[in-house]
Amino acid sequence: MEDTGSMQAVLMRGAGPPEVLSLQSAPMPMPGAGEIRVQVTTSGVNRADLLQRMGRYPAPKGWPTDIPGLEFSGVVDALGPDVERWQEGDRVMGILGGGGYAQYVTTHGATVVPVPDSLDLEQAGAIPEVFMTAFDAAVMQMGLRSGETLLIHAVGSGVGTAAVQIAKALGARTLGTSRTPAKLERAAALGLDHAIPGDAAWPERVLELTAGGGVDVILDLVGGPYLEGNQRVVAVQGRHVVVGVPAGAVASIDLRAMMGRRATIKGTVLRARGVEEKAALAKAFEERILPLFPSGEASPVIDRIFSPDQAADAHRVMEANANFGKLLIRWA
Amino acid sequence: MEDTGSMQAVLMRGAGPPEVLSLQSAPMPMPGAGEIRVQVTTSGVNRADLLQRMGRYPAPKGWPTDIPGLEFSGVVDALGPDVERWQEGDRVMGILGGGGYAQYVTTHGATVVPVPDSLDLEQAGAIPEVFMTAFDAAVMQMGLRSGETLLIHAVGSGVGTAAVQIAKALGARTLGTSRTPAKLERAAALGLDHAIPGDAAWPERVLELTAGGGVDVILDLVGGPYLEGNQRVVAVQGRHVVVGVPAGAVASIDLRAMMGRRATIKGTVLRARGVEEKAALAKAFEERILPLFPSGEASPVIDRIFSPDQAADAHRVMEANANFGKLLIRWA
Repeated sequence: MEDTGSMQAVLMRGAGPPEVLSLQSAPMPMPGAGEIRVQVTTSGVNRADLLQRMGRYPAPKGWPTDIPGLEFSGVVDALGPDVERWQEGDRVMGILGGGGYAQYVTTHGATVVPVPDSLDLEQAGAIPEVFMTAFDAAVMQMGLRSGETLLIHAVGSGVGTAAVQIAKALGARTLGTSRTPAKLERAAALGLDHAIPGDAAWPERVLELTAGGGVDVILDLVGGPYLEGNQRVVAVQGRHVVVGVPAGAVASIDLRAMMGRRATIKGTVLRARGVEEKAALAKAFEERILPLFPSGEASPVIDRIFSPDQAADAHRVMEANANFGKLLIRWA
Repeated sequence: MEDTGSMQAVLMRGAGPPEVLSLQSAPMPMPGAGEIRVQVTTSGVNRADLLQRMGRYPAPKGWPTDIPGLEFSGVVDALGPDVERWQEGDRVMGILGGGGYAQYVTTHGATVVPVPDSLDLEQAGAIPEVFMTAFDAAVMQMGLRSGETLLIHAVGSGVGTAAVQIAKALGARTLGTSRTPAKLERAAALGLDHAIPGDAAWPERVLELTAGGGVDVILDLVGGPYLEGNQRVVAVQGRHVVVGVPAGAVASIDLRAMMGRRATIKGTVLRARGVEEKAALAKAFEERILPLFPSGEASPVIDRIFSPDQAADAHRVMEANANFGKLLIRWA
């Protein structure tokens, strides 16, 4: 095991605009008990990375504080003590609490999943954060079932495009909103059943499309400004899960309306979870979602790929909402 | 089966103040398939009855529209077709969608539970709505477990006093707020672990008592004005269930805070549920909560008992928040 020396990584020099990111040398990480070290093929860029870069979303305890990055694909490079499942050379992917924009990452072996043979490592790099988030939020937490309806706000986002595919494979009907017509078209091509412009009339459209009954599950990647509409369109016993609030966090809520619908609102985040919870998610994901890739029912959606010295550019594209699907950083 | 004739009932003459209630003659109800008819011993008075009386909470489809009342205790008097479990003379209690302020009620046999031998029918009359609501909301829906903490707002209410006893029997620690010191004292005598004055400082008190970690489950019988505080005191993965909003329904909510805590808010109501759901609740209630009465772990809490011609007085007492525990109407 080469356990000393250095690697390349994208570091944050303080908090600020994209320019605080730069490619630097960093110490090579060492796998601890139960951990593996992975030579990274691609690092995914996520909206949460922008918040972290601006100093508003620090890494949870135990994760690198100055290297952003919440996911990776790559090849197992070294094993810590007590790792049974993995061998050097195995192709893996997974989510991280931080440190993903790097040539090497260490993470607990139970929280990663194998890359299906049908995918190359670049495609795989577009999977972990968005497909795990969509699966965890809509299916594991909100219990989306076959025959139910799922409304996805910001359907052109990474999580949105993953949710469309997972819901379709599960037999649920999907409705999705976006303010960008081109993104709605592309989401429809991925299998979105009902593409809805994200203008003021979206609640009426949702009610029309559901014969007035509303939707069973709402996957919310927008936040506050849509809350009033979400309260109008949630079905009796409907479940609304909040995964992101880029448009604003604070809004007015009507608790009596929630009682009448017996509605649920839940906030969620993957990053802060401990190893045990992440391992449980990885296991369920491997069993239920991973088989959808070889079968062709799900495909990673990649918008574009950057070299490590272009990390700031990747952040600018995401800040401008100019991507459809994932932005990746490719190493070597 | 005496299936014709008339009975006495408390009818609503239009919507308005307590005076719209009066004791009248009404047609004797007939049990349909699967239904039983019960000669009522006591009819419970609930806050929802006040809303209905004011025209703001009409009965769901299939229930009497002009006779309020959501619960009863009594003796089975007649059986409809296809009733297997019950016999004439059985002592039963249960919740209703309406029609409870009457000498006789009909209801589906699967939604009622037997009155334990250790209780008289008057005591039993104080059980169904409040104990079923507290059990359903805190345990069945929010998954309150042994070792967790439960915060109850308006702990001196019927549902509040039932929740204290259920949580204690389950091994959960209880915190309760009330604006009335005497109610806090009485709730403490029932087993409430931490009695908290319902002034502006209640969130700080809750955080002190939970070492800053907050509470696992909030049973909310107050509503909007407490939402900000509830968001501050809910634990990571905490669950907030809204059972009543007498203090107001609309409030400001911070969705990002919900994400950080991975918190859940759910609205609930029993009345609108169908027979199947009510039957499932009755079954779980019979198995898990009913045994607490003979064992002495739970006791119905009766504030006072009215005669049927005093129904308006009962409403006035509840409107003034002057009761601790249940108000009942006793027949014959």
